[in-house]
Amino acid sequence: MTNRTVAGALSGELKQFIEPARVLDSPEARIAYSYDATTRQSLPDVVVKVKSAAEVAEILKLAGRLQVPVVPRGAGTGLSGGSIPFAGGIAMVFTEMRSIKEIDQENMVAVCEPGVVTGNLQKEVERQGLFYPPDPSSLNYCTIGGNLAENAGGPRGMKYGVTKDYVLGLEVVLPNGDIVHLGGKQIKNVTGYNFVQFFIGSEGTLGVITEATLKLLPAPPARKTMAVTFKSIDRAAETVNAILYSGVLPAILELMDQKSINYVEDYLHLGLPRHVEAMLIIEVDGMPEAVEAETSKVAMLCKKMRAEDINVAKDNPEAEQLWKARRAVSPAISRVRPTKIGEDICVPRSSIPAMVREIRRVEEQFDLPIVIFGHAGDGNLHPNILTDKRDAQEMERVEAAIEAIFEAAVKLGGTLSGEHGIGLSKKPFLPIDLSPQTIDFMRAMKKAVDPANILNPGKIFGSEL
Amino acid sequence: MTNRTVAGALSGELKQFIEPARVLDSPEARIAYSYDATTRQSLPDVVVKVKSAAEVAEILKLAGRLQVPVVPRGAGTGLSGGSIPFAGGIAMVFTEMRSIKEIDQENMVAVCEPGVVTGNLQKEVERQGLFYPPDPSSLNYCTIGGNLAENAGGPRGMKYGVTKDYVLGLEVVLPNGDIVHLGGKQIKNVTGYNFVQFFIGSEGTLGVITEATLKLLPAPPARKTMAVTFKSIDRAAETVNAILYSGVLPAILELMDQKSINYVEDYLHLGLPRHVEAMLIIEVDGMPEAVEAETSKVAMLCKKMRAEDINVAKDNPEAEQLWKARRAVSPAISRVRPTKIGEDICVPRSSIPAMVREIRRVEEQFDLPIVIFGHAGDGNLHPNILTDKRDAQEMERVEAAIEAIFEAAVKLGGTLSGEHGIGLSKKPFLPIDLSPQTIDFMRAMKKAVDPANILNPGKIFGSEL
Repeated sequence: MTNRTVAGALSGELKQFIEPARVLDSPEARIAYSYDATTRQSLPDVVVKVKSAAEVAEILKLAGRLQVPVVPRGAGTGLSGGSIPFAGGIAMVFTEMRSIKEIDQENMVAVCEPGVVTGNLQKEVERQGLFYPPDPSSLNYCTIGGNLAENAGGPRGMKYGVTKDYVLGLEVVLPNGDIVHLGGKQIKNVTGYNFVQFFIGSEGTLGVITEATLKLLPAPPARKTMAVTFKSIDRAAETVNAILYSGVLPAILELMDQKSINYVEDYLHLGLPRHVEAMLIIEVDGMPEAVEAETSKVAMLCKKMRAEDINVAKDNPEAEQLWKARRAVSPAISRVRPTKIGEDICVPRSSIPAMVREIRRVEEQFDLPIVIFGHAGDGNLHPNILTDKRDAQEMERVEAAIEAIFEAAVKLGGTLSGEHGIGLSKKPFLPIDLSPQTIDFMRAMKKAVDPANILNPGKIFGSEL
Repeated sequence: MTNRTVAGALSGELKQFIEPARVLDSPEARIAYSYDATTRQSLPDVVVKVKSAAEVAEILKLAGRLQVPVVPRGAGTGLSGGSIPFAGGIAMVFTEMRSIKEIDQENMVAVCEPGVVTGNLQKEVERQGLFYPPDPSSLNYCTIGGNLAENAGGPRGMKYGVTKDYVLGLEVVLPNGDIVHLGGKQIKNVTGYNFVQFFIGSEGTLGVITEATLKLLPAPPARKTMAVTFKSIDRAAETVNAILYSGVLPAILELMDQKSINYVEDYLHLGLPRHVEAMLIIEVDGMPEAVEAETSKVAMLCKKMRAEDINVAKDNPEAEQLWKARRAVSPAISRVRPTKIGEDICVPRSSIPAMVREIRRVEEQFDLPIVIFGHAGDGNLHPNILTDKRDAQEMERVEAAIEAIFEAAVKLGGTLSGEHGIGLSKKPFLPIDLSPQTIDFMRAMKKAVDPANILNPGKIFGSEL
């Protein structure tokens, strides 16, 4: 928390150039913007609902003068604490900047403000026959600004990539108040450094994104979903590779382990087979002829890999039925124990079986139930530890288990986070993955961009510069 | 050129830790590494053929101590002067680092040194049923290191993206001699800043890449090529949009204007129609069923857009025949006048007709023949000015014409360079495209990474820090 005198002065100073109704410092407002989707919480001193890049610039200049932290935030659905104002200061909120400024059908780009809800953008562009692929699970709530800050992923990452792959241009306010325009509607651009990518995934520590130009695709005309079960999880992982190697690139290739299947079955009674070690949910999309051909090819490969059961949805309602199981994983496992700690490691695809074995070993060693599901095609697994945060002793075991999982992931050539970011939650574990030289280099860049350390300080690599 | 005393000392110092046979300072060697594929030239003081990241680190430390520039270079096929050692110093050559260290079939990645020739990597991975899509025209000569430094593109960019889209990991030597490992074999990675993309396209000004982990795809099992002519270039451009909007994403969508067609016809007598304003060369690839369906759809759309002639290749030799015209553009126009200045603007796709009209206006205004061809699907056009560099008066008109083309491109929402980089050639025009704030920000980043300004100084945004 900021020094109380400074905090008191802050609202007054902000109200000099922001309508008072958009500067909130009531306890209710401060609590409302104090948390995200992790279990962490910390109060900002003041909440500001910004309306323009110019306002953001003025706020950053003021914050620099007063040495007060500024923490930009989207909808607070983040899973790594990236938007928690743990050092107090200003929570910068974008709910007043949620306009889709343009959907340019001819060039297939959308221009939008950071407060736009991802799912709303998707619906809008779909109405025009277009497609914005990134699909984080929270897409009905999360915002484009948060997606850009954390480089959010989702199941479709398999074929379509993640948020960073859809950003052509950005308007960014730098900590010194400069407003820069990077990239634009051009698909190819090598004029100067690739700053667009520099800001994406930087978790609000380098600049404040106030507008994004996003690449769209034509909507794929056809889609087909199937669910395939395997007695052995190794076989499921081998099948993933066999599919990709055959030249078929599914839009989605999701994995559920035996525990996920059983918890979902307990919850929804869908008739899922409790004895199988793994279920893959596979979706192919594209031209109708290609979708037919690819579906047959995938089914044939699954058969060859001795799948237990291959269930191809005949139509949309049947596909919805297959998706039901995958979508129910989170609610199903949330019922099992009071707290669910969702992790987000990413390993080279070939290491999935070894990683699953490592997680099973951790589970046994620390005596904690761990459910595994995630994006098998990307090697991006979400081991979820089921626990109770009120039990301090157990939470120590949870921390040790998380560390053991990260160590195993890195040993297998993987990384701490595939799509959730580092934020606060994974900051202590960063040295498992990155060398001191790389961390020093990040610090040096942060210091060069934000010498006063006002933008989301303390995230990713620690608070000291 | 560096101070002669320093230059003299340099070879001696380098030979302290590099085998003398790899430290070259004969006039012949210095001339051999003094130019690229532009018309520019400048001698380095000494040429070093490096063998490892450790050697690169030692050289950078020495260069920092002696305040001598270091210019890393690939095969010198660059089109913007990025590798020309115009301030002398050390030309760092990677011909001794051309090993493909690993092709990991299961994870579909290749790990290679910067000196690997792009075409050789492609052949190697194709032998294993895999595919490395980036295809700059110089692929039989250019190297992966140069491709990474300039973020090289190519015709397949349409569907497959450019070099940056295939880089999962990098080993980079920083100007202070630190060796950092960024990313790896994981497909998704949000652990810390996206430094991989920070270095790609930075034209050797921020760090020296000594190893790259590249993403591969399964080789598409089928491919089909067609050539389509249009009476009006506007119609050709509209057809490009109609194809993309229909949901078909061709691998390649190339444009040749009437001048290109006629110069090629003068050169090869292929029977090309001289009266049409544009020819599109379209290639679709993927699963055989999809390729068939997409070919029919594209042909139907072209018919609907009143194409003059639609020629679908029945087999590979026929496809080769169609490609012959496009491949012959450069040699054909090189015969017309002694010097050919190839530009590389990129505009939003919808601006292609307007951009073509602007180029025609510039052509008339400055009385210089300008041929237009390029990657229509990306909006990335290569206007080539045919001139004679020995005619100083005409070269002044050429410079003015280039500036007018850049101004028009930026006015239409485009940029100076789609795939060649800024280097030396486009440096004077940078302020047409980027604001002073953005250029300042680049300078600040360069200064933070390379405070002594030893790495490829003077490129992109000027020599002063």
